[in-house]
Amino acid sequence: MATQNEIDAMRRAVALAARGLGSTSPNPVVGCVVLDAAGNVVGEGWHERAGEPHAEIHALRAAGERARGGTVVVTLEPCNHTGRTGPCARALIEAGVRRVVAAVPDPYAPAAGGAETLRAAGIEVELGVLAAEAERVNEAWLTFVRLGRPFVTWKYGASLDGRIAAADGTSRWITSSESRADAHRLRAESDAVVVGSGTRRADDPHLAVRDAPAARQPLRVVVDTEARTPLDARVLDAAAPTLIAVAEDVDTPPYPCEVVRLPRAERGLDLKALLAALKDRDVVSVLLEGGPTLAGSFLAADLVDRVVGYVAPVLIGGGGLPALAGPGAPTIGAARRFRLDDVTRIGPDVRIVARPERKES
Amino acid sequence: MATQNEIDAMRRAVALAARGLGSTSPNPVVGCVVLDAAGNVVGEGWHERAGEPHAEIHALRAAGERARGGTVVVTLEPCNHTGRTGPCARALIEAGVRRVVAAVPDPYAPAAGGAETLRAAGIEVELGVLAAEAERVNEAWLTFVRLGRPFVTWKYGASLDGRIAAADGTSRWITSSESRADAHRLRAESDAVVVGSGTRRADDPHLAVRDAPAARQPLRVVVDTEARTPLDARVLDAAAPTLIAVAEDVDTPPYPCEVVRLPRAERGLDLKALLAALKDRDVVSVLLEGGPTLAGSFLAADLVDRVVGYVAPVLIGGGGLPALAGPGAPTIGAARRFRLDDVTRIGPDVRIVARPERKES
Ligand SMILES: NC(=O)c1ccc[n+]([C@@H]2O[C@H](COP(=O)([O-])OP(=O)(O)OC[C@H]3O[C@@H](n4cnc5c(N)ncnc54)[C@H](OP(=O)(O)O)[C@@H]3O)[C@@H](O)[C@H]2O)c1
Ligand SMILES: NC(=O)c1ccc[n+]([C@@H]2O[C@H](COP(=O)([O-])OP(=O)(O)OC[C@H]3O[C@@H](n4cnc5c(N)ncnc54)[C@H](OP(=O)(O)O)[C@@H]3O)[C@@H](O)[C@H]2O)c1
Repeated sequence: MATQNEIDAMRRAVALAARGLGSTSPNPVVGCVVLDAAGNVVGEGWHERAGEPHAEIHALRAAGERARGGTVVVTLEPCNHTGRTGPCARALIEAGVRRVVAAVPDPYAPAAGGAETLRAAGIEVELGVLAAEAERVNEAWLTFVRLGRPFVTWKYGASLDGRIAAADGTSRWITSSESRADAHRLRAESDAVVVGSGTRRADDPHLAVRDAPAARQPLRVVVDTEARTPLDARVLDAAAPTLIAVAEDVDTPPYPCEVVRLPRAERGLDLKALLAALKDRDVVSVLLEGGPTLAGSFLAADLVDRVVGYVAPVLIGGGGLPALAGPGAPTIGAARRFRLDDVTRIGPDVRIVARPERKES
Repeated sequence: MATQNEIDAMRRAVALAARGLGSTSPNPVVGCVVLDAAGNVVGEGWHERAGEPHAEIHALRAAGERARGGTVVVTLEPCNHTGRTGPCARALIEAGVRRVVAAVPDPYAPAAGGAETLRAAGIEVELGVLAAEAERVNEAWLTFVRLGRPFVTWKYGASLDGRIAAADGTSRWITSSESRADAHRLRAESDAVVVGSGTRRADDPHLAVRDAPAARQPLRVVVDTEARTPLDARVLDAAAPTLIAVAEDVDTPPYPCEVVRLPRAERGLDLKALLAALKDRDVVSVLLEGGPTLAGSFLAADLVDRVVGYVAPVLIGGGGLPALAGPGAPTIGAARRFRLDDVTRIGPDVRIVARPERKES
């Protein structure tokens, strides 16, 4: 049984893990807290970037000799394999810790077995503490490992009556600056931001994260079957990397960025192939920023893992563009059911977070 | 300055007032608590039904002699006129109370002046205590008195993407039984329930309140320009009174209910004339239950005072019927702005209550 002190430390470790969102892919986010033998916090750390030390290593370094005989609280089972940084299980043994409390067992085969190695070295190991919270912060990576594709969040900003643009196509600004700032944070936590050619054309969006270095920018992705993105599109500037997805059979202008050729689907490009191409580029989390047509195809293909809607108290009415287009459900019974995981007021708006009712994992 | 004890009593009085919603029209809802000289609650009452005693009379009767030298806490300034039940100001003087604490001054000219009468009789009077809460519970009646028309609540049940029916027209059941029960309570608190001819035809709704006597039923109103409601429509049964609104120039079948003839507007019937006809029938509060076209006209005419949306975590997508139809806003700037007054989770759904940003009063 974990002590209350260990549970508190795990909560802190989950918060530390979240700091890595957007920069650790293709690795998980991990947070770690070291308690000394008396239960005092003597070290903290989180996995900051792929290729850099794991959370446990950071936390053990901070703790130094005080880790000896203490407890290491970590959001993911310590890895067992010698990756770019050496196995954490070994580092824990060498540090002389007495006990390891971990939230989520490592589902990634090459890294698993850390708990076994620790136990074999006489260290007490407890798994499953605060597992739900720790799974949530790592849901993108867990989906990536379990389903072999990036985790997809569909984000939209709509009126109370579910419109994302007025009759004239104007969509700025339906939601408040507070909502937009919150959505911007989502973007910063994602490895890639995806829009369809319709949104590209209507809004000429930039899609970069403000005030972030290029190394921490999400990959900007335009799903543009016919390669109609013009060379002066804002998304093609040097602020962040960009990927234009086009059909296998089209000619492309000399884009100053990577182009990926994908099979066509009934409508536009094959989205499974798109996600596979993103996985190959270490994209663990995708933020689908629009528009309604592309979102409709993602939903129809059952490729949406989370919906984040910012709903503003405004009514647009007839002629406005619906938040979701494409095939749609022929009957209510066939409509896709989600569960509301969070409803939070953001400035004058409300943010609604929903996830599919039956997870495919 | 009101004491904490008096403020607590006012909160209770507001809750008592709410019990009258749906049965006091064209009167306000009013709640009253009597405190004895030592501050103990010795009487409670609320206005239960038009034509029956006012809240103060009920509460004073319950208190009896213990009211003498005490304080009467009431949500609306005591009336001064001799209506069907005699002025409350007089009753308070006769009961020998020392002090009267009221929330909202009476805006209804023939009844106003109660505070003056009480003060002239040497009673201490304080107005404005917990006024916002007391105005809220009486907002329908206050709108009725100030604007000379019923208060209109537009209620809808929609998917996350703002659809109220799937492509095939099916709308049951988008929202949960919990949401439907909550919406049913709204209906029971209203004097009239209004639907357009489109909803009448699509759903053949009954619109009555379950388990309520006919005397407590809202008036069922169908806005049916061409008098196409068939004689076997469910809304024409004897469970509750019904009013069919038709154009001045159409022939009507022999409806077993009242028919009102109204001028035509650009689209359908003139809604201001409809509300005037409802006012003539002592309708203080209207629940607009659909559908999207009629709601669009009410909004375009600036006749919606409150929006209550039940949003279910389901995505319907293309082909589904939008929650709001009709003219709509040509640009985002022209869209109607509201403020979110309440966001509450109801079972698996979320209920969003919004009111116009600038009240017209
Ligand atoms: N408020 C908001 O949150 C928000 C967010 C985004 C957009 N918007 C608004 O949405 C509007 C644009 O909407 P939209 O629906 O035209 O744009 P969209 O969904 O961004 O783009 C749709 C286009 O993507 C291409 N595409 C490629 N593969 C596809 C696939 N598998 N499924 C579907 N489409 C695929 C198709 O064109 P090709 O095959 O020809 O390439 C399709 O027409 C703009 O008015 C914009 O302002 C609002
Ligand atoms: N989920 C929900 O909350 C909900 C609630 C209600 C309805 N619904 C769905 O909504 C659909 C019906 O929608 P609808 O838009 O056709 O129905 P509607 O809004 O109930 O009725 C529209 C009709 O009302 C008449 N009307 C009279 N005066 C009008 C005026 N001033 N402005 C506008 N209309 C006026 C018009 O026909 P005439 O002039 O020919 O009489 C108009 O076509 C159904 O599928 C129903 O299931 C869903």
